[in-house]
Amino acid sequence: MEVQQYKFGPYKIDQKEVFYSTDLSYALVNLRPVNESHVLVCPRREVKRFVDLTAEETNDLWISAQKIGKQLENYHKASSLTFTIQDGPHAGQTVPHVHIHILPRKGGDFENNDEIYEAIDEKEKELKKTFDLDKERTDRSIDEMAQEAAEYRKLFF
Amino acid sequence: MEVQQYKFGPYKIDQKEVFYSTDLSYALVNLRPVNESHVLVCPRREVKRFVDLTAEETNDLWISAQKIGKQLENYHKASSLTFTIQDGPHAGQTVPHVHIHILPRKGGDFENNDEIYEAIDEKEKELKKTFDLDKERTDRSIDEMAQEAAEYRKLFF
Repeated sequence: MEVQQYKFGPYKIDQKEVFYSTDLSYALVNLRPVNESHVLVCPRREVKRFVDLTAEETNDLWISAQKIGKQLENYHKASSLTFTIQDGPHAGQTVPHVHIHILPRKGGDFENNDEIYEAIDEKEKELKKTFDLDKERTDRSIDEMAQEAAEYRKLFF
Repeated sequence: MEVQQYKFGPYKIDQKEVFYSTDLSYALVNLRPVNESHVLVCPRREVKRFVDLTAEETNDLWISAQKIGKQLENYHKASSLTFTIQDGPHAGQTVPHVHIHILPRKGGDFENNDEIYEAIDEKEKELKKTFDLDKERTDRSIDEMAQEAAEYRKLFF
């Protein structure tokens, strides 16, 4: 059986964390999600900025995000979706590999809508700290992430 | 000369405010921008949710956003970009017509990165209030918007 290799910037991603993939893109659950349904969609090729993607990669990435958003919104009985690319360090990007944040949203999930972005930033910073410093981690376990990814994987067959 | 018609949800958009268009998408300057370079990209067809777009529309929208982001980042001597779709009312959407917010970003432009999203939300609310209530407006003038759009239009020839 072919073993797929996934990289997120400089970090190797366990395939158990991946719940959707095409030839050009893949989606993973989060080490430290902002809410229960916060996931990331990336191009397979490691590029820093959105402009670095080819037209084919851009199309595949957003068609993937559209499909994933639809399924996760239904799965979590949500009513809206936040899609964001923090494209470059001054937009809050910490891992230098293009990634779309997708967050299914419900009425009143955050007191003010913008709190969700504050939470995304906080998590991006924590993620970097975790990877960089190899300090004591309060991340989710691989088992917990694998279980979530396995549930989501079922939505795409 | 053919006169192009542009609609943003229920609102008619003056073509002077439009600086980029394809058969399926168009981009407009903002009535009340969050920063000097905040623009919107929409599908021409009025649909509420991102999932409602065809693959062709989705591809055209994001390829347009990529081109516009690149040009505006250079034009404003910025270093990063924020791309966001607030997809549905519980994600902060007020005008029920899919739109990508693009904001060129610079170091220290907002004290905390997430303040930019708070500002987007605030402006979405103000925009709705303005359109809905037809009250005394503190919007930018059409001349000011037309001038900005004319500058941006030059970037795409």
